[in-house]
Amino acid sequence: MEISVVKIGGNVIDNPEALRCFVEKFAVRTGKKILIHGGGKVATSISTKLGIPTKIIDGRRITDWETVRVVTMVYAGLINKTLVSQLQALGCNALGLSGADAGLIKAVKRNPKPIDFGYVGDVPVECVNAKQLLNFIDGELVPVLCSITADKDGTLLNCNADTIAQSVAVALSQHHQVELIYCFDKKGLLADVNDDNSAIPVINPENCAKLKADGVISDGMIPKIDNAFAALNAGVKKVVIKSYSDVDNDKGTIIKPD
Amino acid sequence: MEISVVKIGGNVIDNPEALRCFVEKFAVRTGKKILIHGGGKVATSISTKLGIPTKIIDGRRITDWETVRVVTMVYAGLINKTLVSQLQALGCNALGLSGADAGLIKAVKRNPKPIDFGYVGDVPVECVNAKQLLNFIDGELVPVLCSITADKDGTLLNCNADTIAQSVAVALSQHHQVELIYCFDKKGLLADVNDDNSAIPVINPENCAKLKADGVISDGMIPKIDNAFAALNAGVKKVVIKSYSDVDNDKGTIIKPD
Repeated sequence: MEISVVKIGGNVIDNPEALRCFVEKFAVRTGKKILIHGGGKVATSISTKLGIPTKIIDGRRITDWETVRVVTMVYAGLINKTLVSQLQALGCNALGLSGADAGLIKAVKRNPKPIDFGYVGDVPVECVNAKQLLNFIDGELVPVLCSITADKDGTLLNCNADTIAQSVAVALSQHHQVELIYCFDKKGLLADVNDDNSAIPVINPENCAKLKADGVISDGMIPKIDNAFAALNAGVKKVVIKSYSDVDNDKGTIIKPD
Repeated sequence: MEISVVKIGGNVIDNPEALRCFVEKFAVRTGKKILIHGGGKVATSISTKLGIPTKIIDGRRITDWETVRVVTMVYAGLINKTLVSQLQALGCNALGLSGADAGLIKAVKRNPKPIDFGYVGDVPVECVNAKQLLNFIDGELVPVLCSITADKDGTLLNCNADTIAQSVAVALSQHHQVELIYCFDKKGLLADVNDDNSAIPVINPENCAKLKADGVISDGMIPKIDNAFAALNAGVKKVVIKSYSDVDNDKGTIIKPD
């Protein structure tokens, strides 16, 4: 069996037209599939309206108790059920999930030393209950998994959606052929940031070093590409970075292990 | 197979100690089971903080677009995932759901004439996908279903949790023996509202008329009891009204068809 693990970025979630376009194309994408999402700016905007201050230490956001409650509301509630209801209306048998549901992901609360990030979880591959996910997929369901999880004690935790996508893809690759797809608002990794038609077709270890040295792979893209190689080395068959509007076709930047 | 459909009231959800007590007892309740919940006061409090005005026509609350988004966040997000994560930590394999998920409940948006209640759905028995619910139960999962649904067009709708419990119980009773349990903060229907030990053991059509005439069954309890009889007439084996702290035992008021 082949399974696509598709992750959508916050930029897509924040843009209703982009999200609608993505949902329509994801619904018609053929084959077994899983959708993974975090949240966009709406959680920040609701936190602000609720008067919850944003705490940042060393440039990184701290998820306190009030904040994990807001992201649970927004990611597992509003965004997840919006995606599920739209997919269902399009004939895609979506099942909305958090990592807490059906014991899918028993995350690990991040060590509070040296910095206490609060209610943030890490998701090593062995935390993923691949068997249960496959039960859902075998039952003709399309899991729509948000980045909220819980630990074994039932504490809700906010996790990184990219990491969840990677760990889920690796866990499933122990049973089936898995393609991991990161959808965002560009047509792939662009050779020229000002030219949306300059997507690099293939990144492999050979050209990757040069692309990093030239600054084409920079900032937030560096860990994404590094994680893509890690996923490939751990058993994932194919990793693609592409536009949300191309989730039903073969376009985008393919990351290859060799 | 015997299945218990357990609905918890808003008073239990609003009280963290009561909710914890309920969750612990629900987790150890033997047999196949489903939990159904709406929300408590937290949705109202968040709406107020977000500056969403409460609209009431003829004494009934109107669910506008902003409000259905808040209840989706609170019911399907915060409350649902809090229940699921706590149950999972207690070894109960909970699966959080809205009616939108897996096409479980395709609700019908309420007719806007004579009063437009907004994003409110009705749930006739034939809207319930009993087969999918039974698939989950057969897979050793415990569905935790909130009162948010969607219609066939993917519009999110707020529904009455009592009605969902009743329709789910009736739909499942076409396949299995079903017990419908309403849990709240009293030990049953009390003969004397000031005496929590005065729960009436049995209500049947014979004593029901007298209890209504005497005002023992009054106000919000009247539709609950009427719906209980309707559920029994439609195939549900047993209906019980009881305390959240008695969900693991046989106490409470049993409603019997004869």
